Amino acid sequence: MNTHVKPDIPSGFVELLPEEQMEFDRLKAIIAKHYELHGFLRLETPCVERLNILLAKANEEDQKLIYGVDTLVDGKFKRQIPKIALPFDLTVPLARYVAQHCGGEIDFPFRRYQIDRVHRGERKQAGRFREFYQADIDVIGMGDLPLLHDAEMPAVIHGIFQEIGVAKYVIRMNNRKIHNGLFTHLQVPETYRAERSDEEGKPQEVVCSSLSVIDLLPKKGQEWVEREFQDGVGLSTDTVRKIMDFLSIEGSKDEVISSLRSFQFNERFDQGVNELDEVLGYMHSLDVPDDVYRIDLTITRGLNYYTGTVYETTLHGHESLGSVCSGGRFDDLAGLFCKQKLPGVGISIGLTRLFDHLLRHGAIEVGRKSPVEVIVFNMDASLRGDYFSLAAALRAAGISTEVYLVDRKIDRQTKYAVKKRIPYGIFMDAKRHTKSVCSIRNYDTGQEELVAIADVAQWLHPH
Amino acid sequence: MNTHVKPDIPSGFVELLPEEQMEFDRLKAIIAKHYELHGFLRLETPCVERLNILLAKANEEDQKLIYGVDTLVDGKFKRQIPKIALPFDLTVPLARYVAQHCGGEIDFPFRRYQIDRVHRGERKQAGRFREFYQADIDVIGMGDLPLLHDAEMPAVIHGIFQEIGVAKYVIRMNNRKIHNGLFTHLQVPETYRAERSDEEGKPQEVVCSSLSVIDLLPKKGQEWVEREFQDGVGLSTDTVRKIMDFLSIEGSKDEVISSLRSFQFNERFDQGVNELDEVLGYMHSLDVPDDVYRIDLTITRGLNYYTGTVYETTLHGHESLGSVCSGGRFDDLAGLFCKQKLPGVGISIGLTRLFDHLLRHGAIEVGRKSPVEVIVFNMDASLRGDYFSLAAALRAAGISTEVYLVDRKIDRQTKYAVKKRIPYGIFMDAKRHTKSVCSIRNYDTGQEELVAIADVAQWLHPH
Repeated sequence: MNTHVKPDIPSGFVELLPEEQMEFDRLKAIIAKHYELHGFLRLETPCVERLNILLAKANEEDQKLIYGVDTLVDGKFKRQIPKIALPFDLTVPLARYVAQHCGGEIDFPFRRYQIDRVHRGERKQAGRFREFYQADIDVIGMGDLPLLHDAEMPAVIHGIFQEIGVAKYVIRMNNRKIHNGLFTHLQVPETYRAERSDEEGKPQEVVCSSLSVIDLLPKKGQEWVEREFQDGVGLSTDTVRKIMDFLSIEGSKDEVISSLRSFQFNERFDQGVNELDEVLGYMHSLDVPDDVYRIDLTITRGLNYYTGTVYETTLHGHESLGSVCSGGRFDDLAGLFCKQKLPGVGISIGLTRLFDHLLRHGAIEVGRKSPVEVIVFNMDASLRGDYFSLAAALRAAGISTEVYLVDRKIDRQTKYAVKKRIPYGIFMDAKRHTKSVCSIRNYDTGQEELVAIADVAQWLHPH
Repeated sequence: MNTHVKPDIPSGFVELLPEEQMEFDRLKAIIAKHYELHGFLRLETPCVERLNILLAKANEEDQKLIYGVDTLVDGKFKRQIPKIALPFDLTVPLARYVAQHCGGEIDFPFRRYQIDRVHRGERKQAGRFREFYQADIDVIGMGDLPLLHDAEMPAVIHGIFQEIGVAKYVIRMNNRKIHNGLFTHLQVPETYRAERSDEEGKPQEVVCSSLSVIDLLPKKGQEWVEREFQDGVGLSTDTVRKIMDFLSIEGSKDEVISSLRSFQFNERFDQGVNELDEVLGYMHSLDVPDDVYRIDLTITRGLNYYTGTVYETTLHGHESLGSVCSGGRFDDLAGLFCKQKLPGVGISIGLTRLFDHLLRHGAIEVGRKSPVEVIVFNMDASLRGDYFSLAAALRAAGISTEVYLVDRKIDRQTKYAVKKRIPYGIFMDAKRHTKSVCSIRNYDTGQEELVAIADVAQWLHPH
């Protein structure tokens, strides 16, 4: 009979083994390094926000995914209606933070990054996480913010994906005003009512944005999108054909821009084209290579609050993963919280999803199982003080060092070192070694060398 | 009329301004560095655990503080009884993790660190946080774990507080078996019923541990403790006097150990004294200086599951803060989750409380407001490409660089740099400079120097 509580984590939540965690941390550190090199300030907002703040900025979809939080009385929630909840993204906490501190405590343009976990009570589904890391940068202006910042985002992202180096990638860019202009020109309504299945799979009538139909193109296919525009939004076959023709415009950035310039739709459309052209020009002067970005008119990020430039990023060979890094320009970050106009532009790497996918597809491999570079074996109780002194000297030189403290046969100790993939092992015993010398085994090559104790740090980390 | 949602965070939660966050991150990085130098593996458990797991390991006090988590339907909790909740410490998730993976996925002795936020729905009170960082290390053995590990904990902690360097500190140590032996000898019952005020301040009868009365000595004073032992636990005045006399034993570690050895109580007591003596001996061979630790018989950590060595750490001049780093030895980490016997020893730094206290008392000061080392001013639109190239070269050399992108008068740009306390500013304009030279201003000294573009990185970071 098993009376134990089963030790596992809730489904949809992620936890890594130590060797996976090390690799995850490596990617996270690359991202943080690039964000800081570009002068973004690290911010950390609490794990919970007031529910009314989250609800104020959540669209209908997001609202259904919010996890409420409250203390318990006799195992039940104290209140039916929670006051606090787990944020579903890092943008709402940013908006609240900037509104709270924009009276002089922070400086504009405010450049912040946050790498943190967010929570969404998603339906159980492969590849959907209920807790996941986002790695966000945003620049927030007070009153205005030049388009140069829209070009800066891909430049930062380029540096990161280049260093991660797992795959070729392309940052696909567009401008929301182009679609808004097109839809106005074609008299497409902004929203329409459609049937969607809810969390339990029951059909439910919901209000959808017409723009977001385009976002479903890669997932649902061309036929579905055409049918949805016709039967859902209620467009004529002629209008649908015009939209689909428009979305199929492809080519180099100059070709696409010149195709776009040939349309005579309206001022909004032209403004979108001009902005896109200007941003791409800045990216060129920021030395972002031509082959890592392109215009993609099928990108709208329709569910979000973007008003200009939009980005998505796909990895070659990992298209099924969808966008690993998305974002855009918004006119008004915090209008719900303060009267100041705070335009901004930001981009977010979906770190958990990216890492999970790359790991499962063998695109990244876990290596060492421990930060330890060298282990000092416990061969002779009388030398313990010497083991500790050597370890202290190595740590002072920045070398992660473990002393094996348990009394075990040396075979069992070396097995532990091999299993944890510790690169070097140090043997000191009273028989083989004088107090000033030890043997260091390199577990990669299998070779062992006699090294003077005073030289071990230098031997391991030659300058 | 103000129709804005008020932008603030829930009370009891902590959020820092960017310059405070930088200082907090510096402390956190020192802790993580030392933990890794000693070969502890970083672990990250999810923000939530199954509620039944938390309840299984929570004492009565902890249970009342658990935050339940559930999704919402029409703004109300979907369930009355949550399935998941926010952990109140990092030890329960560790126990669950080790039990879950002890069948070969992790290696023993398992050395892990976790620096993460935990949550407790505490009553509002000065200095009490509902969300706070703990920085934990634990070593978990399979079957057994030698006492040397008990000595390793203070050695790691010593390195950290030495590097943080804000105050002298003392690690106060004791062994639970000593108190257990004493209480058995004096026939003190393990628990007693006492009246305590609940979350709303109403009196409530609760079961208390007799040991934890001793823990209240620094907070409630000697008189209260004596009265509680007499009226609460129901001890005779003679027994109370014996306990108080015992707790007042002080002196060097040798003096205290020899006082303890003079008692003839029972085997358990002697075992506690022997263990304490052995651990202190190992600490000496680990080069922990004599003046940073001492035996303190008033330390019991009575509310916790410790069975041997116990630690508390106080900072000189900051005694009101209480212990900033506590922990101990436990016989059985995960008996509720698996049949393996997993003894361990661990210690935890209360990072949020420590940081908050040091900041409010001026013991640490915030410095720079940004990671940026140098800002390139936007003086001439025609040179923008040159600004970007220089910035890219500096970033490649590991120098955090910002290019001022907004078109503003140079006065406003330099004001921004000064406000953000960026140490260096680079001026390049077509009039004053040829393309190969710029001026660098050092904002600390106010001096400006002409430097060749090719030499800027070297000038800023001389090797």
